[in-house]
Amino acid sequence: MRSQSGPDPTRRSERSRRAILGAAVELLGETGYNELTVEAIAARAGVGKQTIYRWWPGKGAVILDALADAAVDVDAQMPDTGDIRKDLYAIVRPTVAELADPRLSATSRALSIETLGDEALAEQVRDRLLRPQFDAVKDRLRAAQRANQVRADVDLDQAVELIFGPMYYRWMFRIGPLSEEYANDLVDLALAALGTDTA
Amino acid sequence: MRSQSGPDPTRRSERSRRAILGAAVELLGETGYNELTVEAIAARAGVGKQTIYRWWPGKGAVILDALADAAVDVDAQMPDTGDIRKDLYAIVRPTVAELADPRLSATSRALSIETLGDEALAEQVRDRLLRPQFDAVKDRLRAAQRANQVRADVDLDQAVELIFGPMYYRWMFRIGPLSEEYANDLVDLALAALGTDTA
Repeated sequence: MRSQSGPDPTRRSERSRRAILGAAVELLGETGYNELTVEAIAARAGVGKQTIYRWWPGKGAVILDALADAAVDVDAQMPDTGDIRKDLYAIVRPTVAELADPRLSATSRALSIETLGDEALAEQVRDRLLRPQFDAVKDRLRAAQRANQVRADVDLDQAVELIFGPMYYRWMFRIGPLSEEYANDLVDLALAALGTDTA
Repeated sequence: MRSQSGPDPTRRSERSRRAILGAAVELLGETGYNELTVEAIAARAGVGKQTIYRWWPGKGAVILDALADAAVDVDAQMPDTGDIRKDLYAIVRPTVAELADPRLSATSRALSIETLGDEALAEQVRDRLLRPQFDAVKDRLRAAQRANQVRADVDLDQAVELIFGPMYYRWMFRIGPLSEEYANDLVDLALAALGTDTA
């Protein structure tokens, strides 16, 4: 049994951890990744710099943890109404809206920079942030395949990439608007490739 | 008329410029972007560091110029055999092969890092490197639309992104093989979305 006579150190650590992750995401939206420092995160979170370095090797790892915390429930958010077009609209519209949002976009850019530049961190970004969403969409497409709304011969990895790749590319190179109309058109175009005539 | 009594300063500048750009691309393949320094480029090129800083603000701008030089002839390389599937294979296979090549891939990663992190440089990357290839493919798709091989209602910007987006996404997040088979499947999938029944 735990002593009740003093503050619980585990709970205190968890409080500090949450304060640090929250501060990192806030500052990222305010200053951008390049200007973000571990010192600023520590000051905003009300902890010492050494507390951050005890748990993370650098700012990239802090941000990754912050976003992975936010992403854990993504699988539960995946709709299945039985209508693949409707469900893909429900997935793609908010993802496009996130990419269009300046603050959320700054976070995604920061993570993408880390992903490109640091192979070890890239694996973590892929496995902890992208993989859950990727797999959830893939599961939904597999159900659509069984329901004869997606062609049986479609490679489901390529199918997911056909949806996420174009929007990511458009965002990354700032080559076109990220509007709801764009999101709808993207889903319609992908389903023209993936769908059966009966879908 | 120019004096012939001494070395031509314009020609000497152009020789230095080419040496610097060549050294930058070589070193990028050898050390990667993070370890690349203006000092190392200068040493390899046999010029002083101040010569580089006279012409470019930093290493990102040097690399951009090197790649833009290599990209100028991309429009001339765009095939038009009259068969859109065949021509897209001819465009997509070598692009996928470049992304699979460790040395060329290092260069692309470096530019992508700059693109994400520096908005001014991003515009240049987009307009000088991506736009020529993008527009050339778009022109080829427009011809295919006239030949009834691509549906008349397809947005050609989205069509180009449907081809380049997925391969870029797969490369960036290292989520699957970048093989010739993949390139072929990507073209087939895109044409299933874009093509008319008669294509």
